[in-house]
Amino acid sequence: MPEPGPTAGPVVALAGGVGGAKLAHGLQAQIGDRLTVVVNTGDDLERHGLLVMPDHDTVMYTLAGIANRELGWGIEGETFGAAAMLERYGEPTWFRLGDRDLATHITRNARLRTGAGLTEVCLGLQQALGVRATILPMSDDPVRTDVKTDDGWLEFQDYFVARHQEPEVHEVRFRGAESAGAAPGVVEVLDTTALVVIAPSNPIVSVGPILQVAEIRAALDRARERGVRIVAVSGIVGGKALKGPADRMLASLGHESSALGVARIYAALATDFVLDEIDAHLAPAIDALGLRTHVTDTIMTDDAARARLAAECLALAAER
Amino acid sequence: MPEPGPTAGPVVALAGGVGGAKLAHGLQAQIGDRLTVVVNTGDDLERHGLLVMPDHDTVMYTLAGIANRELGWGIEGETFGAAAMLERYGEPTWFRLGDRDLATHITRNARLRTGAGLTEVCLGLQQALGVRATILPMSDDPVRTDVKTDDGWLEFQDYFVARHQEPEVHEVRFRGAESAGAAPGVVEVLDTTALVVIAPSNPIVSVGPILQVAEIRAALDRARERGVRIVAVSGIVGGKALKGPADRMLASLGHESSALGVARIYAALATDFVLDEIDAHLAPAIDALGLRTHVTDTIMTDDAARARLAAECLALAAER
Repeated sequence: MPEPGPTAGPVVALAGGVGGAKLAHGLQAQIGDRLTVVVNTGDDLERHGLLVMPDHDTVMYTLAGIANRELGWGIEGETFGAAAMLERYGEPTWFRLGDRDLATHITRNARLRTGAGLTEVCLGLQQALGVRATILPMSDDPVRTDVKTDDGWLEFQDYFVARHQEPEVHEVRFRGAESAGAAPGVVEVLDTTALVVIAPSNPIVSVGPILQVAEIRAALDRARERGVRIVAVSGIVGGKALKGPADRMLASLGHESSALGVARIYAALATDFVLDEIDAHLAPAIDALGLRTHVTDTIMTDDAARARLAAECLALAAER
Repeated sequence: MPEPGPTAGPVVALAGGVGGAKLAHGLQAQIGDRLTVVVNTGDDLERHGLLVMPDHDTVMYTLAGIANRELGWGIEGETFGAAAMLERYGEPTWFRLGDRDLATHITRNARLRTGAGLTEVCLGLQQALGVRATILPMSDDPVRTDVKTDDGWLEFQDYFVARHQEPEVHEVRFRGAESAGAAPGVVEVLDTTALVVIAPSNPIVSVGPILQVAEIRAALDRARERGVRIVAVSGIVGGKALKGPADRMLASLGHESSALGVARIYAALATDFVLDEIDAHLAPAIDALGLRTHVTDTIMTDDAARARLAAECLALAAER
């Protein structure tokens, strides 16, 4: 009997920033242009009059092979000449933009101002950087994530970057999500996809906004009804987030900060759940939620680990 | 009898880019915040959706002491990370913007988008950089210089930067100049000024647009009638432009490419004309135009030379 290999047909990943970008990178290494990544836009923000899309750009730079692995954000070999001048001009610079990165925002804004759509503009940038996969913003309509803390409602990046994720999050809202349509191409690819992978991004503020877009949620439900496997990968390992504040956020919002807690959030949507070996003891409880569990090494320390985890997710599509 | 020293009261310089910036720098060294520089905006352009103001910014960087003397434009210690990425994105990059310089355009555009006026925004930038003088754009209304060449009408920077000033200029027009008002503060300072200095910038495309703004021209005429000295400094020395295409442009537009040719252009407006020692033989012909001539070393090779030429111009205000 042959090994269950990666399935043919489109594969869709739902992703936020860094964690999602790593798995997307592994998936692209396996299936190239058969991959579509639908990225969260709830973290987007205006800086210095420019639209900045942290999750889209993290995924784009990662898939283009130019991500700055040292910093964990931005572009390799980055310089900060503009940031130094912006500071001299008294511009708020807590959201630090590198010079190369600024070119992305400048180009995107220039093209948006000519009347082009957000997705169309993003696709042009990706193509220019040689990205093989397709990265689709979840929506061309603005959706903005806010978190309620003891300091009141904060815009996401204010919480995430300016306040270093220190305030406890009591509530989350996604402004604009209710009326936001799926971006061009998102529903189409979900309606023909052979597999959906929910990347190990923050389930509340990275994947959460994507699932709030009604057209996307409906298309995911249709895919599931069609028998498409929806594989969620836990970003919580040993009770801790690999990166970012997901663990504390889960806890303060009344979830369990564990792979089980993540599985509960995805239980109504996903068919499969990938968790780390360290959390193997949670597998029975996750099975009991009606999810098929897959225990493996989920820590993507290098390109080989990214590709291996990606291959394991892809293999699930072939299993019936 | 005491030496005629720099006069008290405001001094106004009319200036374009590099040549104008040097004399303005010398004037600022002499009289600090008593100096107002009215700069040409006809060279301004949109790049990547951002308004770029080459003459304003050259003067601003020079007066702030951060001009890149090596390049002859932009900011000292400049890097070009953004430009490299802009090129990858397929943006036209013949007008090369440095990273630090980009911060100026980004900040200006962000502030303009909040509804602030152009002059107000420029003053904020100057203040942040510690410029002691006041630099006023000639107008808050857009004026754009075009030159007619054998290739047809070209926008100024297309001719100046992209085509390296190679095409012969047959005609010049200043789009928007007829309806442009003087920027806030320009008429006010001209109506109280003790001296006007026309910097050794290109008389056609640097000083020319400023004089095309009716309110400025009228205020200059009033100043002259009031007895204010209007001192023009020749940017043509020995028949050649110190920088740029002024010499060839004068010739192709039917003027004489000499200090005398420049003097003829300013004869109806200026009271005094400063020309280089090398052109001393032209002084009688310039005198005959009704201008008081002043022969001196006009080559501003260093800060001391800038300050000395500035001091000589300032001394003229005290002579009656």
